[in-house]
Amino acid sequence: MRIRTIRGGLTAVDGIRAAGVWAGIKPVTIPDLALIVSDRPAVAAGLFTRNRFQAPPLRLTRRHLRDGRLQAIIVNSGNANACTGAQGLRDAGTMARDTARLLGLPLSSVAVASTGVIGVALPIGRIRRALPRLAAALSPTGGSRAARAIMTTDTRPKEVSLEARIGGRMIRVGGIAKGGGMVHPQMATMLAFLATDAPIAAPLLRRALREAADGSFHAITIDDMSTNDLVLCLATGGSGGPSLAGRGPAYRQFCVLLTEACQRLALQMIADAEGGTKIVRITVRGAATPAQARAIAMAVARSPLVKTAFYGEDPNWGRIMAAIGASGAAVRERDVSIAFGPVTMVRGGRSAGAVAERRAARVLHAREIPVRIAVGRGRGAATIWTSDLTDGYVRINAHYRT
Amino acid sequence: MRIRTIRGGLTAVDGIRAAGVWAGIKPVTIPDLALIVSDRPAVAAGLFTRNRFQAPPLRLTRRHLRDGRLQAIIVNSGNANACTGAQGLRDAGTMARDTARLLGLPLSSVAVASTGVIGVALPIGRIRRALPRLAAALSPTGGSRAARAIMTTDTRPKEVSLEARIGGRMIRVGGIAKGGGMVHPQMATMLAFLATDAPIAAPLLRRALREAADGSFHAITIDDMSTNDLVLCLATGGSGGPSLAGRGPAYRQFCVLLTEACQRLALQMIADAEGGTKIVRITVRGAATPAQARAIAMAVARSPLVKTAFYGEDPNWGRIMAAIGASGAAVRERDVSIAFGPVTMVRGGRSAGAVAERRAARVLHAREIPVRIAVGRGRGAATIWTSDLTDGYVRINAHYRT
Repeated sequence: MRIRTIRGGLTAVDGIRAAGVWAGIKPVTIPDLALIVSDRPAVAAGLFTRNRFQAPPLRLTRRHLRDGRLQAIIVNSGNANACTGAQGLRDAGTMARDTARLLGLPLSSVAVASTGVIGVALPIGRIRRALPRLAAALSPTGGSRAARAIMTTDTRPKEVSLEARIGGRMIRVGGIAKGGGMVHPQMATMLAFLATDAPIAAPLLRRALREAADGSFHAITIDDMSTNDLVLCLATGGSGGPSLAGRGPAYRQFCVLLTEACQRLALQMIADAEGGTKIVRITVRGAATPAQARAIAMAVARSPLVKTAFYGEDPNWGRIMAAIGASGAAVRERDVSIAFGPVTMVRGGRSAGAVAERRAARVLHAREIPVRIAVGRGRGAATIWTSDLTDGYVRINAHYRT
Repeated sequence: MRIRTIRGGLTAVDGIRAAGVWAGIKPVTIPDLALIVSDRPAVAAGLFTRNRFQAPPLRLTRRHLRDGRLQAIIVNSGNANACTGAQGLRDAGTMARDTARLLGLPLSSVAVASTGVIGVALPIGRIRRALPRLAAALSPTGGSRAARAIMTTDTRPKEVSLEARIGGRMIRVGGIAKGGGMVHPQMATMLAFLATDAPIAAPLLRRALREAADGSFHAITIDDMSTNDLVLCLATGGSGGPSLAGRGPAYRQFCVLLTEACQRLALQMIADAEGGTKIVRITVRGAATPAQARAIAMAVARSPLVKTAFYGEDPNWGRIMAAIGASGAAVRERDVSIAFGPVTMVRGGRSAGAVAERRAARVLHAREIPVRIAVGRGRGAATIWTSDLTDGYVRINAHYRT
């Protein structure tokens, strides 16, 4: 299967329209309200934050998703509508109801999402007043405007659109996402909205989305741990052809396509990490199990000492060793090797010497840094992407109110 | 029991001598080699890092501690002798053997510790040449010089000396420690060496030391997770009187005294946190269990978003809510209250309003910030100390080689 990058982002999928406008939630005139609509009722699946304090819009969206169908998604940035209690639920309900009424849809076909400041009541009046203007702006080329309207500390909109021939027909996946790609991203709100024209049943779409997220959004985050994290995928079925079957090769190919789309969005988040100057890919091989490989990669990816060393372009493998040893995974010092790009730094648990350090310094000077770790215990492998920890990160987060 | 602060640090305990000199391990002429000696064989207990890659000096010290007795501790800073393999073990052995020979002690009565750069061979020749000078400098007032000689990124030496009347006699505890009190301290080397004149058997001293560490060093660190973390306590028995019994009130009082000593050292670490400008005390009450209280406190204490908000003096309780919800503990939004000092910010999971925010800003302006969290589920409580995350931290760690 050949995956082709196409134009159009989220709205590259036929029958999907989108829009973004300024509703006055953000104090400056940048878009803060987005709407995504499918011309026909779409099969839908979602992934929700595991944070115990799930924000009201997510609780509402989870309810509306029960029948596995959605037709519209209304999203605001600038206010998370989280820790807002009964009022928050009423406000999320109002967003859904007004949107449904305006578009002539059943209430339960509308999903709601919010991102921004926690604990402040939603300026629901402003949102209601902006809705007709937003609906009027809906366009089959509006994906980029929606992508802009869901940004918070993002410096760039995040979009993807791909297509591949699967089971004799072209299938497309488009998507938008937001997420500062924060240095410890489990606390940042991550939103991603995807659409596909694949014909697929809801349980199968859920399974495919989970798999795609494991290889993408979950590979840059520890958990979906903000109060507002949400991934939604709409499947219009517009590609035609028979519905994808769970055991067929077409479904596997669709999973690969969806994973690729999610991965491209996830990497755009890392590339736009708050204050980040590096994209670090940590690959672990030879762990006893895939879970242990993931634990090792995560321990390295989350270590603030490792992350600051990357910022300083310091080939400080000692901190990586310490993080591996602290990961809880079964490892022996003498089995460990570490490489920065093509340069082996550690072999058999020992320094590869001063020449390697000098060569590594050049690898670390690049924006993208591949770190390969082998622990020689089995066949478990995992890849995690992370960013560096910089004074830019501290500046942004000391004063920005999430 | 009244605990009195006395002078003298580690060497406030009679029969304990200490010294610190420059051996040339560090490139500048600041002390980097310390020696602590008990005039008589002492009962001893230790706590070792749980990092899988335990440094060679720790592996040697663990062996020498098997009989529950020590008489000398030789410590270098500037080089961790970690990830140094067979050569590292030989070098640690040489440090112990030379020290034993010089002092006329059995080899197994000497403990060895190292802290500094990982993965570089110890300059063992320089250490051997400095040892006679170090032994000659041993003094009953040398605690402070030893405290200086174990520093790495510390800006201040860390010392404590306390006494209390326990079971009819005065018992003293003295100690020194090092640790940048790093913002995520599980990766920093933490060393603490304590001495007491209490008469106590080795198993009981181990138990007391574990309890004291739980309320102090473990309340500022996630785990003992550097390759070199080590806490050692020598008990000379010099106070006289009967040996402390495990079930008696005297043992309980000794535990309180030892915990207080460890806590004072731990708080000096937090106060000297790398780049830190705040000391944040996070107290959680009302959790289902003490372990869940600890999980909540740790989730808040480790969140880089929470820590940067403290740096920015931003009363950003939303980030604290998100961290509580992400902790994995059983919590309900509407049961949560959060206070900064005397100012309640969140009640029943909701904002206490704009007046509270303004009053909280004043609390956050202070260097010491008490954060009180109640989750209304039971009687589990825990206290964790942390520091703020600052651009100073990033500067120090981007370029310092641990």
